[in-house]
Amino acid sequence: MQLIRSVKALSAWRRKLEREGVVVGLVPTMGALHAGHRALIRAARLSCDAVVVSLFVNPRQFGPGEGLARYPRRLRQDASLCRAEGVDVLFVPSREDMYPAGFGTVVTVPGPSRRWEGEARPGHFAGVATVVTKLMALVRPHLAFLGQKDYQQTAVIRRLVTDLGLGTDVRVRPTVRDPDGVALSSRNDYLTAMQRRAAPVLYAALKVGRAALLAGTRSGVRIRKAMQRVLSSEPAVRLEYLAICDPETLEPLRRVKHKAVLLGAIRIGKVRLIDNLVVRR
Amino acid sequence: MQLIRSVKALSAWRRKLEREGVVVGLVPTMGALHAGHRALIRAARLSCDAVVVSLFVNPRQFGPGEGLARYPRRLRQDASLCRAEGVDVLFVPSREDMYPAGFGTVVTVPGPSRRWEGEARPGHFAGVATVVTKLMALVRPHLAFLGQKDYQQTAVIRRLVTDLGLGTDVRVRPTVRDPDGVALSSRNDYLTAMQRRAAPVLYAALKVGRAALLAGTRSGVRIRKAMQRVLSSEPAVRLEYLAICDPETLEPLRRVKHKAVLLGAIRIGKVRLIDNLVVRR
Repeated sequence: MQLIRSVKALSAWRRKLEREGVVVGLVPTMGALHAGHRALIRAARLSCDAVVVSLFVNPRQFGPGEGLARYPRRLRQDASLCRAEGVDVLFVPSREDMYPAGFGTVVTVPGPSRRWEGEARPGHFAGVATVVTKLMALVRPHLAFLGQKDYQQTAVIRRLVTDLGLGTDVRVRPTVRDPDGVALSSRNDYLTAMQRRAAPVLYAALKVGRAALLAGTRSGVRIRKAMQRVLSSEPAVRLEYLAICDPETLEPLRRVKHKAVLLGAIRIGKVRLIDNLVVRR
Repeated sequence: MQLIRSVKALSAWRRKLEREGVVVGLVPTMGALHAGHRALIRAARLSCDAVVVSLFVNPRQFGPGEGLARYPRRLRQDASLCRAEGVDVLFVPSREDMYPAGFGTVVTVPGPSRRWEGEARPGHFAGVATVVTKLMALVRPHLAFLGQKDYQQTAVIRRLVTDLGLGTDVRVRPTVRDPDGVALSSRNDYLTAMQRRAAPVLYAALKVGRAALLAGTRSGVRIRKAMQRVLSSEPAVRLEYLAICDPETLEPLRRVKHKAVLLGAIRIGKVRLIDNLVVRR
């Protein structure tokens, strides 16, 4: 595995592949890799000749007080996971290299960014869209692999890749969960043991929503209430939002027709957790 | 010469070149080609193996009342100019193909877009930046050729190409002028013969500014006043702005150190004309 630390070296590596007809896959990450990332890397290996994992804790997608400074950084562990999984390039650019002096371009995707995480975290999706556009432009992957756990993020990225004609096939892979149903996330590490015991309630609520939907409930409000009842059974949890949305626009659905995404965000203590389920009737 | 009318066909054409080590040049245009565009095409031919001219009257860079509908469209003439100049691909996508239903991504470059044309034409540079990002992503040119006449536009595009790592070398070529100094522009066609006789005053004013600067005047205000005196000699002309700016940020300079761009915009009747000069002390 090559560890590439500069934009320039990455571009040179990419250019060399150009004439060889190599299929390149990208797994964009912020590091602190877990089994969810491992599943993305494995999916990339199955359909690509060369797999690039990018590791960049993107300051532009953190709001003030959102923990940029304390975001877990463990390059050595991350590199050994990548090596073990047969990653070809681990791309770890510096902040100065990604955002040199004078940097001023902003990519936004107002539609799918507007609600939910976009409301709770102003500027977050502009940061995501900008860095992903740059990563895509540098790596020029044929395929990119994203985890469904950050559903709204996948919708924003799919939209911008299509809109800007970036030529990348975006593959969204299922959320990897702990045995009790909690979606893997670096944020889970911030939970105390007691808080961790409350965390499964979010997935439980989403499953109740899915069950209601599959049993024939079409009203968004009723599905939402069923999910909310589950959440309110857990006093340690504060609800941020629960929503039944169109899977592309992320606008809330009054009535579900064919397909919906159920989105949820909660707070346990100071830790904010999100999860989702996509349901087809 | 190939006339390519769809994004899909263009991407297929581009992919085929990938393995051949061909150097691709792009001349992005809105059509109504004149000798200024011809100079860009010739510059592209000198340093590229394959030259793509894009012709797309981009609705997103026109404000209301800015004449999108009456913008000159003369594909047959444009195609024969391109053919005569040895262009390899004339890319003429439809509006629906560039902006299909659901399109929602916006690229902005707030810094260099803020003033001057950006103030006079809200949303204009977001439209430019978005379409250029898409064109660059589709054509993936090694080089792109822009006319200096739209100076602020070149600053916006250079910034975004650098920021997003698009990997294109942006070449800005000198403004082509009529013998009386008027910068070529499709807008000149809207002037009556009488109005046309007033048009050289803009370039004349810029030249006076340059002369003042080269003669040792460093104060932005004084250079501006010298230019303004020239413009006020022409009663048919309404001043929109005259500015002495940093060539990258386009912020006005109180004192000129080494390099400056002199920007000017005027209105003659309903026609808005812009021009500029870059000056090194």
